[in-house]
Amino acid sequence: MADLAAVKAALTSQVIETPSWGYGNSGTRFKVFSQAGVPRDPYEKLDDAAQVHAATGVAPKVALHIPWDRVDDYAALARYARDRGLVLGAINANVFQDDDFKLGSVTHPDPGVRRKAVGHLLECVDIMDATGSRDLKLWFSDGTNYPGQDDITARQDRLAEALGEVYARLGDDQRILLEYKLFEPAFYTTDVPDWGTSYAHCLRLGPRAQVVVDTGHHAPGTNIEFIVAFLLREGKLGGFDFNSRFYADDDLMVGAADPFQLFRILHEVAKNGGFDPATGVAFMLDQCHNIEAKIPAVIRSVMNVQEATAKALLVDLDALRAAQRDGDVLTANAVLMDAYNTDVRPLLAELRGELGLPADPVAGYRASGWQERIVAERVGGSQAGWGA
Amino acid sequence: MADLAAVKAALTSQVIETPSWGYGNSGTRFKVFSQAGVPRDPYEKLDDAAQVHAATGVAPKVALHIPWDRVDDYAALARYARDRGLVLGAINANVFQDDDFKLGSVTHPDPGVRRKAVGHLLECVDIMDATGSRDLKLWFSDGTNYPGQDDITARQDRLAEALGEVYARLGDDQRILLEYKLFEPAFYTTDVPDWGTSYAHCLRLGPRAQVVVDTGHHAPGTNIEFIVAFLLREGKLGGFDFNSRFYADDDLMVGAADPFQLFRILHEVAKNGGFDPATGVAFMLDQCHNIEAKIPAVIRSVMNVQEATAKALLVDLDALRAAQRDGDVLTANAVLMDAYNTDVRPLLAELRGELGLPADPVAGYRASGWQERIVAERVGGSQAGWGA
Amino acid sequence: MADLAAVKAALTSQVIETPSWGYGNSGTRFKVFSQAGVPRDPYEKLDDAAQVHAATGVAPKVALHIPWDRVDDYAALARYARDRGLVLGAINANVFQDDDFKLGSVTHPDPGVRRKAVGHLLECVDIMDATGSRDLKLWFSDGTNYPGQDDITARQDRLAEALGEVYARLGDDQRILLEYKLFEPAFYTTDVPDWGTSYAHCLRLGPRAQVVVDTGHHAPGTNIEFIVAFLLREGKLGGFDFNSRFYADDDLMVGAADPFQLFRILHEVAKNGGFDPATGVAFMLDQCHNIEAKIPAVIRSVMNVQEATAKALLVDLDALRAAQRDGDVLTANAVLMDAYNTDVRPLLAELRGELGLPADPVAGYRASGWQERIVAERVGGSQAGWGA
Amino acid sequence: MADLAAVKAALTSQVIETPSWGYGNSGTRFKVFSQAGVPRDPYEKLDDAAQVHAATGVAPKVALHIPWDRVDDYAALARYARDRGLVLGAINANVFQDDDFKLGSVTHPDPGVRRKAVGHLLECVDIMDATGSRDLKLWFSDGTNYPGQDDITARQDRLAEALGEVYARLGDDQRILLEYKLFEPAFYTTDVPDWGTSYAHCLRLGPRAQVVVDTGHHAPGTNIEFIVAFLLREGKLGGFDFNSRFYADDDLMVGAADPFQLFRILHEVAKNGGFDPATGVAFMLDQCHNIEAKIPAVIRSVMNVQEATAKALLVDLDALRAAQRDGDVLTANAVLMDAYNTDVRPLLAELRGELGLPADPVAGYRASGWQERIVAERVGGSQAGWGA
Repeated sequence: MADLAAVKAALTSQVIETPSWGYGNSGTRFKVFSQAGVPRDPYEKLDDAAQVHAATGVAPKVALHIPWDRVDDYAALARYARDRGLVLGAINANVFQDDDFKLGSVTHPDPGVRRKAVGHLLECVDIMDATGSRDLKLWFSDGTNYPGQDDITARQDRLAEALGEVYARLGDDQRILLEYKLFEPAFYTTDVPDWGTSYAHCLRLGPRAQVVVDTGHHAPGTNIEFIVAFLLREGKLGGFDFNSRFYADDDLMVGAADPFQLFRILHEVAKNGGFDPATGVAFMLDQCHNIEAKIPAVIRSVMNVQEATAKALLVDLDALRAAQRDGDVLTANAVLMDAYNTDVRPLLAELRGELGLPADPVAGYRASGWQERIVAERVGGSQAGWGA
Repeated sequence: MADLAAVKAALTSQVIETPSWGYGNSGTRFKVFSQAGVPRDPYEKLDDAAQVHAATGVAPKVALHIPWDRVDDYAALARYARDRGLVLGAINANVFQDDDFKLGSVTHPDPGVRRKAVGHLLECVDIMDATGSRDLKLWFSDGTNYPGQDDITARQDRLAEALGEVYARLGDDQRILLEYKLFEPAFYTTDVPDWGTSYAHCLRLGPRAQVVVDTGHHAPGTNIEFIVAFLLREGKLGGFDFNSRFYADDDLMVGAADPFQLFRILHEVAKNGGFDPATGVAFMLDQCHNIEAKIPAVIRSVMNVQEATAKALLVDLDALRAAQRDGDVLTANAVLMDAYNTDVRPLLAELRGELGLPADPVAGYRASGWQERIVAERVGGSQAGWGA
Repeated sequence: MADLAAVKAALTSQVIETPSWGYGNSGTRFKVFSQAGVPRDPYEKLDDAAQVHAATGVAPKVALHIPWDRVDDYAALARYARDRGLVLGAINANVFQDDDFKLGSVTHPDPGVRRKAVGHLLECVDIMDATGSRDLKLWFSDGTNYPGQDDITARQDRLAEALGEVYARLGDDQRILLEYKLFEPAFYTTDVPDWGTSYAHCLRLGPRAQVVVDTGHHAPGTNIEFIVAFLLREGKLGGFDFNSRFYADDDLMVGAADPFQLFRILHEVAKNGGFDPATGVAFMLDQCHNIEAKIPAVIRSVMNVQEATAKALLVDLDALRAAQRDGDVLTANAVLMDAYNTDVRPLLAELRGELGLPADPVAGYRASGWQERIVAERVGGSQAGWGA
Repeated sequence: MADLAAVKAALTSQVIETPSWGYGNSGTRFKVFSQAGVPRDPYEKLDDAAQVHAATGVAPKVALHIPWDRVDDYAALARYARDRGLVLGAINANVFQDDDFKLGSVTHPDPGVRRKAVGHLLECVDIMDATGSRDLKLWFSDGTNYPGQDDITARQDRLAEALGEVYARLGDDQRILLEYKLFEPAFYTTDVPDWGTSYAHCLRLGPRAQVVVDTGHHAPGTNIEFIVAFLLREGKLGGFDFNSRFYADDDLMVGAADPFQLFRILHEVAKNGGFDPATGVAFMLDQCHNIEAKIPAVIRSVMNVQEATAKALLVDLDALRAAQRDGDVLTANAVLMDAYNTDVRPLLAELRGELGLPADPVAGYRASGWQERIVAERVGGSQAGWGA
């Protein structure tokens, strides 16, 4: 049996990073529905993130998206965060919304466009210096829509060159987290479509480049926990962009579509030591709350990760390994399912009580009056969203 | 062997309907890139559509999207079309961009919202009366993002009620074309996710309700030509929304991603009589030209449908049926592939020559000077797009 | 809150039908691994099924597969079952293993082959008369591997004719359950590929023809619970073939790959009255135990269905409907998840205690000594499998 | 424009390797249908392969599968091949059909089973020494069916160890070609599920380990030509196992399901120099002729690869690169499609005439009388198939 005290300790030290853009508006190509009380600037996003941390106790980190979160003084923004019990997390570069990037950014056929894109990435490292962020998260929308549109290998050359230049600029405590995605917005080739491509580039770059796994970025049927286990074994798992999906990159709340998959992923993390902060695995959310209330949705997402983590930590690894060694398929599976089928909500409520947190974070948030306040106060101005 | 004169006659009488919104801007949730010369209103869209028809000779029909193509006087718009050798085609209802429709339109839990949605559909029939359109194309984004969000069967009841009300309003020569789509923008359930659902509703409604097949709206691996053959056998194929995809609803140019699939689909149409105008099968494009030049992309799409149609008409059905009857798998397949592997471009060039059309429609368009003219003239104003 | 007494009553009256072939050997095209103690004939399969029922109390029905379970005297086989507390369930016709059926059975181009296939189906109805079975389960492997190989619509005509002939032969209390499957063993077209095709044929046939949903027979991403809800609404859901899959028709133990999906499916059953025996919905297993011990795997599968059923019955429908009516996405989802996240194993253990069953059916089976006995006794002879 | 003489030269020097098992029986888990005249031993398979080479002129190499092609004297088998104008190609190891391999071979939890598996692989290298084969093709069915069944990372450790031992045994002119496959026969994890895993292991092993791409082994939507281009860029593409699929690993004739995909793949090969024999890229078929006549199906497959190769070689790379450089999406796509839409059959017929081959290889084979002869002569004995 898993040691309950150790489980609680691990749950207490877990850090789940929330994305600034999760507090703003998002939608599909068909429509972005706005919601009352949505933040108008990065400061208000941090205010909302602070509510999530207050309700859950495990969400002190907030990822930024540049240029969506561009401010004049990043050090001041970091102080603003610190004053609310938060720290700034990964800097997410955005090289997909400038008109010049229609046919690519770092892989564009035109060297001038590539230069502009790399310039933005270097600016992001400057911002990291100011915010104290460790991680530069790079997701490229680069790719093509039609066969023949551009040369696959030439684009890899350009990508390698750009990554090399940014890598050289990193400080000793900074990392590149290179994300992959099968498709969207590019619909024929994507320049970093799968973990293998990201891994190969990170290998070339060096130890401060690692792969980030967005759980919604795979082909149907892909076994994500295999990738997670493989990358942990190679020391190349930089972290997660958590969300969930039934179809494509749906960006639903993590754990909403396939809670068992989330558990299996976190079981690999647990079994392979990835919850040890020394491994540097980052647990980030990256999702859209298109139709549901945003702050409670983030809270629910954090809780879903916690619950899956708790179940993963409860797996009786000794019993599991014994059954695996014996080739006892049914028992090995049953040991795993025993943890999954456990209702961990009482354990988490107890833990929250010990930490002075509301037993039910969503209820706690609802009782706080924050939602009513922002709906009343945040009137006028432009709501934050995915706008460039 | 197929009779060449008959093939030419069929190709000459084919009508490919282009969508007004294909001339405007479109994009993904990440970015809509604008293009110089894009129309600012429905009249300019018709001007562009007239160029496509001038270049190809088979695209006289233009589908409208309401409210994107809302004008004060639809009869005047129809006259404007007629003056350019065009006719107005299907009216596409849009009940997915009003703020009230965040959780659904005709299937929304709130009867007031449903009433508003049905009101819009009825308005579209009014417009059809004014434009002389035969087809009301209904695609509903209605659905849910999360398990439990709403009741699947209750939504079916509401859908059936709304459809019934609209059906009752149709004139004798008007039809409902009910489209289905597996997902997007809804990411858990969609209220009309597949052809079976559309078919069942159309069956209940009556003979003037038929299924429309959008080639990008299926789960991976779905055999679309089977659906087409099945619906033709049932007299329930209303038409196509053509486009192509590698992944999801990518909305690429028809024939760009899987030209062999397009051929197989049109082979079923040819074999089962669907090119006979009496069957009423509508051949419509519904795609997005996010990064490529719009008018030439529409021309290319029309040509792709023509080429696949020509190949489908060239299939030696006698030889095919003989091999099928004999259970000769390889020969039957070879007969089909023989038509597919034929280069039909010389045949089409010859036919265009006979009809006084440019042998190469794209080159013909480029030589016309139209593109330079609209880039120069269409300055100022708001470019048309998917905006509500 | 759900009424616990009603939940227990529903769980007590649930009947889960196990397949005779689940007790025999199965495998993939690469290899069938045999297991010690596997039955050599239908009688021994029933002996094993009786152990599953003894351990779980909810599995008294056993489905047969003809010709795999061919015996001289079916009435005697039914008595043999009855003597062990079992009844014979659905008769599964097999028209895919005779050499004549290489290119199809009821849809074969050759009328002689079709006649032979229909003859086998009619023989199955004779067997139903002898066994007292209600359900004729029809799954056809019919289809094609190559474009052009045969005519899609002609095959539909032949299918309709064959089904009509069999339907006419049914007794008043007998049903056709028509199964669909996207692919395998046919790899281009399948003659009943999806629920829509099955539904359309059942509609034509009449009230004693219904659709059976095999949970492994869909394209990736298909929302199975939508289909279940739709068919229940139409009165056309005949039952389930339960199993689970990560990729294709993997035929893993039900609930093993996606327990949340199983819950969502059974939530639709519960919400729409499908657990009422009067609806006639049959809850059958159809899976392969290629590498795991067979009898305990069947027991585990039965338990998985029970646990998902219990969770589905625990959903607070009043709270769910209130949140749905209010458009409160997060609360509606939370109500559903609250039931799913409940650990229902104590409830089921308590119920089993009340019924005099082992609290842990797998442990109960293991303690029974049955496995050792069959390993020792079933020596010599030919193990049962998928052989024709 | 591509240089026609160079195109013909490339087509003349192309070598397409056919698989010995393609001449034997194969099927699905549901049924293996036998065919008259099927070979009874490896010698007869070579006889059939010689017919394919006689008809096409580009298929002198034959891959073996051990133990299916086990003989006492491999040098004699190689001479037998040579006497018929053939050479023996890749040795395909088979560690999936021994009863010991139920839970894995080189990744099995039991070291004794692993030893046995590695022993078989080493025996295959011995055979290569005798046959003069360059390539050891390794496909492992190893994996798990259920979550928890075994430890993902431990299995990677075992895999790496086994590969290392075999690699050390290779001669200087020998290679390991490591194949990957997403699923089947394992249905939860596969130990080499994707190109990234194969690539990472090959990288560790060294220059004589390369990735082999089986075109049927990917998740739906995977862009195979991207992988091909990426591996060529890395010098890690060892070769292809060609076949085609609509759904999963259907193993249909190459080019049958998606001829445009085959063209795109070979376009990447052509553009990146992979048709140069010096790169060592092997063009192998690996498919099943379950229902179609086997020898003509292999001939058709060879022709399909030739036709796609010819189209790929006809791409006007100068025009393509100019359009790509200009960001002219439509023109770049049109240049590619221009080659694809060309009917290359006259060119290939002309080339065959110059080489003294039948203009239509299938017709040539049919006229040869070989099929009638083997049907008459190969009576009695056991037909070759996938049996261990």
